[in-house]
Amino acid sequence: MPLSDQYRVAPGTRVNLADWKTDDAEGVDRSEAEKRLSENILAMTHLQHTLYAERKQSLLVVLQAMDAGGKDSTIRHVFGPLNPQGVRVESFGRPTPDELARDFLWRIHQHTPRKGHVQVFNRSHYEDVLIVRVNGLVDRSVWSERYAIINEFERTLSQAGTTIVKIFLHLSKQTQRDKLAERLEQPHKRWKFEPEDFSSRAKWDEYMEAYGDALGRCSTSYAPWHIVPTDRKWNRLLIVSEIVRAALERMDPQFPEPAVDHDEAVRLLDQIP
Amino acid sequence: MPLSDQYRVAPGTRVNLADWKTDDAEGVDRSEAEKRLSENILAMTHLQHTLYAERKQSLLVVLQAMDAGGKDSTIRHVFGPLNPQGVRVESFGRPTPDELARDFLWRIHQHTPRKGHVQVFNRSHYEDVLIVRVNGLVDRSVWSERYAIINEFERTLSQAGTTIVKIFLHLSKQTQRDKLAERLEQPHKRWKFEPEDFSSRAKWDEYMEAYGDALGRCSTSYAPWHIVPTDRKWNRLLIVSEIVRAALERMDPQFPEPAVDHDEAVRLLDQIP
Repeated sequence: MPLSDQYRVAPGTRVNLADWKTDDAEGVDRSEAEKRLSENILAMTHLQHTLYAERKQSLLVVLQAMDAGGKDSTIRHVFGPLNPQGVRVESFGRPTPDELARDFLWRIHQHTPRKGHVQVFNRSHYEDVLIVRVNGLVDRSVWSERYAIINEFERTLSQAGTTIVKIFLHLSKQTQRDKLAERLEQPHKRWKFEPEDFSSRAKWDEYMEAYGDALGRCSTSYAPWHIVPTDRKWNRLLIVSEIVRAALERMDPQFPEPAVDHDEAVRLLDQIP
Repeated sequence: MPLSDQYRVAPGTRVNLADWKTDDAEGVDRSEAEKRLSENILAMTHLQHTLYAERKQSLLVVLQAMDAGGKDSTIRHVFGPLNPQGVRVESFGRPTPDELARDFLWRIHQHTPRKGHVQVFNRSHYEDVLIVRVNGLVDRSVWSERYAIINEFERTLSQAGTTIVKIFLHLSKQTQRDKLAERLEQPHKRWKFEPEDFSSRAKWDEYMEAYGDALGRCSTSYAPWHIVPTDRKWNRLLIVSEIVRAALERMDPQFPEPAVDHDEAVRLLDQIP
């Protein structure tokens, strides 16, 4: 099975995250992984260029993880090399009062990708069945209906030509501890530390349960979840790049027909002094 | 004078573009230029990271050029290597009916950068004193008042912590001809060719006059224009990177104080099992 498929959650799966690996290098060593990552990025760059030229479909990548799960690093290394003209990254943090005054998909819908673009969500509408559920910010009767709502929302995007790839970066609790401690040590990382990091860590088990439900109930044929082992950075970057590259290859973008006839265009060009 | 300042238009200058070079390598050869470009990009990457962490100020880069002037290539090479999480590119094409139903700054204002971000405008509100003027899409009495309106708009952004850098990629008419012909030849470039490219080429002199007025009247201390010779790609990329790097250095972003006391944070971290 290609690496890009090994971590996909089949629709209908009941997900218990304790059964999913957080560190799984599958016989690939670091230097091999870095070589394949470079190849994947090169291939993605060409595919993105064609997608941008084609302007008929779009790609949405949803990234979710516990704190220190490597979302920022993944964005930088996997999506950073693409042409910024066709890539958007939106981070969904604590909702503003204006956002809270609407339904939970209102702020999300404003950032779905236009045709030709790649959109990356750093956190997403899934927070509304994760942090919102764990902290009891809405009643169970409200969040429990959101899985079906999300599935229909994503189907709507899919029908409009958006390929959706959802990736959960699966981190062990021990690795999170080490990464948070590292954040506190290093001057150029310390600013990322927030007191809230503690409160979600303290509720680790509740989060794992909420993630398990979200990943299981919302992995669909048109918007599958992937559970990517993330304890080792080079392995995480390899797997994410394999998943994204495979998605772009399945989209199979094509350069459009030119808007003008070639010979006629050259003739016109040379008529202008 | 540093390279970043050599092409800046001093406030109050009357700009006649025939007096400004389209090809000026200033004693830098290609290999030296490419080396400096790499150094500039590395420096920009670090500065951007700090700017993002700081979240107190933002950078707006406005790119304007005639067709085939190298805007897309500049975006890819100079801004592509930055972290996409903190960079946005917005291309302003033909206004939609919804945009035409508002004032000309309405669509622009929606994309000004938030604190911590770098925003690149591929075309901009300047089109409203360029293509709109050349093609007579509004009366002279309307476009002629826009220079002052734009200056006050940009002052507003500047007062809110946005550093504004405006770059006109100055192309010779002959180089444009060669690049448009190349576009028609190459399958992976042909899609970019649009029939409108001819009509603006046919009005080259009117465009140069309109650009001259825009660059002269709207180069201010807080939002200067730069006229960058663009016939040679490697030289263009070097100069743009020098200008952007210098702007980021002047902004001098700083990592914020951490939100938590270090020792207290480590103690709390280790209290969580």
